[in-house]
Amino acid sequence: MQILSFPSRADWPTLMARPVQSTEAIEKAVAPILEQVRTRGDAALAELSEKFDQIAYTGFPVQEADLAAAERQLSDELKTAIQRAYQNIRTFHEAQRQPVEKIETMPGVTCWRRSVGIEKVGLYIPGGTAPLFSTVLMLGIPAQLAGCKEIILCTPSHHPAILYAAQLVGVTNVFRVGGAQAIAALAYGTESIPQVYKIFGPGNQYVTAAKMLVAKEGMAIDMPAGPSEVAIYADETAVPAFVAADLLSQAEHGADSQVLLVSTHKNVVTTVNIALMTQLERLPRRDLAAQAIANSKAILVETQDDAIDLLNAYAAEHLILSVENPEAVAERITNAGSIFLGNYTPESAGDYASGTNHTLPTNGFARAYSGVSLDSFVKKITVQSISQDGIKALGPTIEAMAEAESLLAHKQAVSLRLASLQ
Amino acid sequence: MQILSFPSRADWPTLMARPVQSTEAIEKAVAPILEQVRTRGDAALAELSEKFDQIAYTGFPVQEADLAAAERQLSDELKTAIQRAYQNIRTFHEAQRQPVEKIETMPGVTCWRRSVGIEKVGLYIPGGTAPLFSTVLMLGIPAQLAGCKEIILCTPSHHPAILYAAQLVGVTNVFRVGGAQAIAALAYGTESIPQVYKIFGPGNQYVTAAKMLVAKEGMAIDMPAGPSEVAIYADETAVPAFVAADLLSQAEHGADSQVLLVSTHKNVVTTVNIALMTQLERLPRRDLAAQAIANSKAILVETQDDAIDLLNAYAAEHLILSVENPEAVAERITNAGSIFLGNYTPESAGDYASGTNHTLPTNGFARAYSGVSLDSFVKKITVQSISQDGIKALGPTIEAMAEAESLLAHKQAVSLRLASLQ
Repeated sequence: MQILSFPSRADWPTLMARPVQSTEAIEKAVAPILEQVRTRGDAALAELSEKFDQIAYTGFPVQEADLAAAERQLSDELKTAIQRAYQNIRTFHEAQRQPVEKIETMPGVTCWRRSVGIEKVGLYIPGGTAPLFSTVLMLGIPAQLAGCKEIILCTPSHHPAILYAAQLVGVTNVFRVGGAQAIAALAYGTESIPQVYKIFGPGNQYVTAAKMLVAKEGMAIDMPAGPSEVAIYADETAVPAFVAADLLSQAEHGADSQVLLVSTHKNVVTTVNIALMTQLERLPRRDLAAQAIANSKAILVETQDDAIDLLNAYAAEHLILSVENPEAVAERITNAGSIFLGNYTPESAGDYASGTNHTLPTNGFARAYSGVSLDSFVKKITVQSISQDGIKALGPTIEAMAEAESLLAHKQAVSLRLASLQ
Repeated sequence: MQILSFPSRADWPTLMARPVQSTEAIEKAVAPILEQVRTRGDAALAELSEKFDQIAYTGFPVQEADLAAAERQLSDELKTAIQRAYQNIRTFHEAQRQPVEKIETMPGVTCWRRSVGIEKVGLYIPGGTAPLFSTVLMLGIPAQLAGCKEIILCTPSHHPAILYAAQLVGVTNVFRVGGAQAIAALAYGTESIPQVYKIFGPGNQYVTAAKMLVAKEGMAIDMPAGPSEVAIYADETAVPAFVAADLLSQAEHGADSQVLLVSTHKNVVTTVNIALMTQLERLPRRDLAAQAIANSKAILVETQDDAIDLLNAYAAEHLILSVENPEAVAERITNAGSIFLGNYTPESAGDYASGTNHTLPTNGFARAYSGVSLDSFVKKITVQSISQDGIKALGPTIEAMAEAESLLAHKQAVSLRLASLQ
């Protein structure tokens, strides 16, 4: 880690800048893939899957027999773990339901909101080195709770835990297809894959570019994405080995992972660094992690106020507060995806099984975006009912405003009703 | 209106298709505007404002004296109306606050969500024929309730009601600038206009294209936009003159407004059409409205089930249910922006003053998007705290899942903690 001692506030933006990724070249590569799938459907999916993933696209969803086989391939220990995680995630997301509350804004004028599950959603789970069955839970459980009628999962992965998790969350169909072409299939529909109304899930730069391009056309997506990241604020109450392990668990995601350590104590930075080097040696993915750590920073600041300001300016995806009174500090955090309090709350708890969602805003997007939740899978429809007395009371307000906006048919819609009630 | 009697379900998608607008040419025109403002700031704003809007961009926000003058220019009647609307909108949005609820997902594992206002938001209010001060209320009130620290309003309009509403909602600064260049200023910041984290508000095709382009770069926006639209489902309990007035109040927004009438009764369609023609003649904006009406459709269906299926397939921005038992019908609506029940609930109530938000998903986006609400101005940050007993109970679950995903540093972050507790 690069250690930066007491940098001036003027230098913070530069220190904390994420690497800017030029997306133009990738978008140019992805746009024709989208167009091919949009115009030629399954035929294009088959060609592109063969070309990019060496997968023969069958045009059929994964069958019952394969789902049953997947379940048999898993150890009982792993199935029990997945079920425990499922239960915790379900409990936390279940509590996010909002009951309908009718509000009488003035006598005779009643307004409310109904939450309705998005009818068709698409979940994308990448292939690659880590089979992200945990992400199937994180996206599938709120989809299931929201009452989404069709939950379509696309993945190039053959890992049985992905199929097992898909069954638990009630996925309608799993299709073996990956990359930008899978996003295109979900966005436009093909002969085999239904068009969905919102697309969720992580992926490489091609998948991300595909999601952003279909979003520009109006498709709803979970959120923009960037490399995963953690910031840890540690004081002398932190256990250095735990802090090091948390930094590494972020760093192993990939060489582009962002890792930031903030402290008011030089000796904390020093002891964490020593623990980091020791633990790094023992990691199977140490090459990836070492690159991420080499690009990462430990920043020494003067005061807790400095630390909090810096963390709010950074807007980390994951923020671990290994400090005294972490809950009080958390109250002062305005920008973060998810916050982990104290020495016994590692990021990996939230990544897998504590109950919170691990699909979170990266790249500073936490300034405006929330992580995935039950909200992400519902629309809230407003409803209103006005009585005759209500329109009598409210009508003149509407008439005055419509007239001032020169929208006289809007005024007339009220005036006619008022006249009928005289 | 074109009257279509009992079209087959196979023909519905074509009947209900929105006009597809090619955005490519507009994006090509807008991209250099964004780039100029991004690289040259206020100098570019001044040039572009002069060129497109014949406004001299001063580089200063609207001053106190101008705000005070605006208030003096409004009639007491209009001020009272705006205050009444403010109160109702505030009451409805205030009820959308979600209290923090700590969930113990298992013993010793506590998770919750905190709602935090987005620190800096930008509101755009277009110029043009209708001075949309009502939109200042619809965007500014939830921003104010959310506790957004900076609320920046850009508008080319000089209408005093816009400045009056801006003061009511606590806008930080108003800048006199419009078009794609205003969106660019909010997205990138200039010497005079602060960069914001989320951009809201309606506009012409250039403004919409600018919002979609900055969204592709990760900027948060309210939602994608298209022409405004209403669908009305009417039976023989509907008052034809009211239905006609509601159709026209949508149609007067512009020639591209979408208007759809659905009924199971031919005589309802006939009598509404007669009332429509009579009322149209009296409208000052009759040319715009007549064009929109000419492009609009009345669809006769066999049964209530057909009507509901058709309305759900259309996913209207505004849906008026002028039918018997409208609340029961509303329960079966899965796709709509906002629903208006019965004969005395005109769309213009929700447009101005009943309390609901009028920034709603158009163009079928209601399948996945909600209208603007308090939620649109907050991020929800998840927080978790795990005790020593909690990590002992949950740890093995995390270890098993991390190992199965080949993320061994994630596992190690737990194993180290468990070892320390033995």
